[in-house]
Amino acid sequence: MQGILELLPGDQIAFDKMKQMIQEVYESFGYIPLDTSVLEREEILLAKAGGDTEKEIYRIKKGDNDLALRFDLTIPFARYVSEHSRELNFPFRKYQIGRAYRGERPQRGRYRDFYQCDVDVVGDGELSLKYDAEVINIIYTTLNKLNVGPFVIRLSNRKILNGYLESLNLLDKAPYILRIVDKMDKVGAEKVREMLAKEKVSEDQISEILKFVTISGTNLNVLAKLQSMTIENESYKTGLDELVQVINCLEDFQVPSDYYKIDLTIVRGLDYYSGTVFETFLVDDPALGAVYSGGRYETLLSGFGDKKIPGVGASLGLTRFFVPFKEKGLIKTETKTPTKVLIVPLISDLKVPADLAKSLRARGVKTEIFLDDVPMKKKLNYANKQGIPFVIFIGDDEIRTDTYTVKNMKTGVQQQATANDIFKALSAN
Amino acid sequence: MQGILELLPGDQIAFDKMKQMIQEVYESFGYIPLDTSVLEREEILLAKAGGDTEKEIYRIKKGDNDLALRFDLTIPFARYVSEHSRELNFPFRKYQIGRAYRGERPQRGRYRDFYQCDVDVVGDGELSLKYDAEVINIIYTTLNKLNVGPFVIRLSNRKILNGYLESLNLLDKAPYILRIVDKMDKVGAEKVREMLAKEKVSEDQISEILKFVTISGTNLNVLAKLQSMTIENESYKTGLDELVQVINCLEDFQVPSDYYKIDLTIVRGLDYYSGTVFETFLVDDPALGAVYSGGRYETLLSGFGDKKIPGVGASLGLTRFFVPFKEKGLIKTETKTPTKVLIVPLISDLKVPADLAKSLRARGVKTEIFLDDVPMKKKLNYANKQGIPFVIFIGDDEIRTDTYTVKNMKTGVQQQATANDIFKALSAN
Repeated sequence: MQGILELLPGDQIAFDKMKQMIQEVYESFGYIPLDTSVLEREEILLAKAGGDTEKEIYRIKKGDNDLALRFDLTIPFARYVSEHSRELNFPFRKYQIGRAYRGERPQRGRYRDFYQCDVDVVGDGELSLKYDAEVINIIYTTLNKLNVGPFVIRLSNRKILNGYLESLNLLDKAPYILRIVDKMDKVGAEKVREMLAKEKVSEDQISEILKFVTISGTNLNVLAKLQSMTIENESYKTGLDELVQVINCLEDFQVPSDYYKIDLTIVRGLDYYSGTVFETFLVDDPALGAVYSGGRYETLLSGFGDKKIPGVGASLGLTRFFVPFKEKGLIKTETKTPTKVLIVPLISDLKVPADLAKSLRARGVKTEIFLDDVPMKKKLNYANKQGIPFVIFIGDDEIRTDTYTVKNMKTGVQQQATANDIFKALSAN
Repeated sequence: MQGILELLPGDQIAFDKMKQMIQEVYESFGYIPLDTSVLEREEILLAKAGGDTEKEIYRIKKGDNDLALRFDLTIPFARYVSEHSRELNFPFRKYQIGRAYRGERPQRGRYRDFYQCDVDVVGDGELSLKYDAEVINIIYTTLNKLNVGPFVIRLSNRKILNGYLESLNLLDKAPYILRIVDKMDKVGAEKVREMLAKEKVSEDQISEILKFVTISGTNLNVLAKLQSMTIENESYKTGLDELVQVINCLEDFQVPSDYYKIDLTIVRGLDYYSGTVFETFLVDDPALGAVYSGGRYETLLSGFGDKKIPGVGASLGLTRFFVPFKEKGLIKTETKTPTKVLIVPLISDLKVPADLAKSLRARGVKTEIFLDDVPMKKKLNYANKQGIPFVIFIGDDEIRTDTYTVKNMKTGVQQQATANDIFKALSAN
């Protein structure tokens, strides 16, 4: 189907392995699995979508319920936390690896059905900024483990740019300006200038904004420049202070400083982000866009209940990641099956083959029996195509002597072995 | 949301563990993971749905595509196999653990969003009946591993009842009669009699049918009775012969005979089953209905392409399984987090705590750091509620002496330990 990635067995195994690695990193930081439905009440999604996302929601009408497919995992998570807040233990760290759906026009790296691998932590009333650094540390640890090559986590705090715009008396236009600045990476500075002009921002102000958001240098340099500016605005000062705290904490966490970079053009498209924001780009494939993004949301959950439940999280878009990675040969798909042993019975009575299979399975050796009555060539061809490492033949001779013929499919070497020999040799794998 | 099961962390971890165990059994038999989208083209689902299922489909209208949510995993699998048949290696064994959706009226044990854990094997043109026995063996192995208590796999072959009806000259009414007989278990013989009468089956024939489908006794007894009947019908003979073959093979596979029972009332609701059919019931909770069902489908894939691709499969309804199991106390939910160690920094500099956390994680010890500045009581309370087994305190003393205070949260015992002591003690877990 258009815009839906469907994998063949080898790719599926590789994909699942990546999912498994991500899950292992998330759990290593003490994050707890969560698994909400892809169905949500439409009103909940619409209330928090905003922008272009709303148009992309898949809606279902059935009976008295207006349901829709989630377009991210964050909003269902927020709904979950507010519904269950009394039963949860805070700070609540969770991860979820699941599919989300957007009715986008299909294009490279964009899918209508895609995996998101989310980590989030939410607090009861308060949540230290150190968690923002923890989430960035998790991004760093995950991408390192996935061995994706060099990457940069581009980092900002929305309050800085918001405060700066406020100091220019542009607060009323801030939401539009933020959305336009967010596109800088895709459309370039000239186009941003044009778009800002359309929003009736004066030329002088446009130049100032562009100069401001493109402040660059080392992280320490950028911080020094931002601190030296005489901007008398509370939001600006708070944002800058928060950014400094997060960066200090990243140093404590030993995230190497060349993996994160302050970038004031980073805003994030969704409205619910309120402080720290970040997007991750692959150095060797910047055109792929942001692959691992997130930030802090102070008010996302406020619509659902009375409690203040601030949170911070990140989401890895695994599906869009997978195809370019495969194209570059970074994903190995030699294994087409988990099977280690194929038992080929040369007799019709299956008792002995079944018994051996059962014993192998009990020892953790994934074993299948070839059950169709076809020529031997076809059976071996199957084992070869699947990449099954060992084939064991069982005929009358084998049963009489209690010794089986084992063929190593890689080397082609065939040898006789007792059941115990086989258990010893293969259980170790 | 109504009809949707949403789990709290402890239950989620228990649920995921069951999923993991099922996956391990499926892979131990050499089945390969598959993961199709929950979205399918509506026409594909409608073509194969039939009966009540059609009304329950969640439909989406967006742009030029008419999409819908899958109501099982079998039809998307059939579509997948027909689309990719040239790239697949047959016999193709696959499993899929995923959600399916039905807009049913919510009731006990019935959900609108539910997990199906499917195994299927399909052949290229031919598929030995031994695979039918393999799938039943997988049901037996899985339920044993899940430790669900006694269960019975009720087993039949559609061709037997179909052939029998044909011999009574009721072939034209067979689809209705099969559907009615399928309800025997839920509604009882009297209601079935009534429903058959409405379909204008004569009283004599109704009595004969009821007598036929309720033939009982040991499996060997039932087979003997069926073989002794003078029914001159090809379908009947073929079905009976197939059933005998499957049962012989189950003996070879060492599935204990008290775990499966021939039951001619077993038909399966969906139209695509063509031969072997089975449903599994828990002896201690028959009211829960069939929890693990399936059968052989010779023509399911025929609508999609030219090839004949017969298959056999089974599906475990994990979601409906879970709640009654939890209610009976069969599912343990003490663990609310994967975390083994909570590090509580008593200082603001996080370098040493972060370093220890990193080293523990590298050794496979799931570790979180308490990052909020709250009173100690609240921190310990958090560890207690989460059931985290160990808390490590790191203050100035600890850093100076390179010895940490480790508290065993179960015993309450607190002791001093070096990083190496900690690695040795915890990496082993």
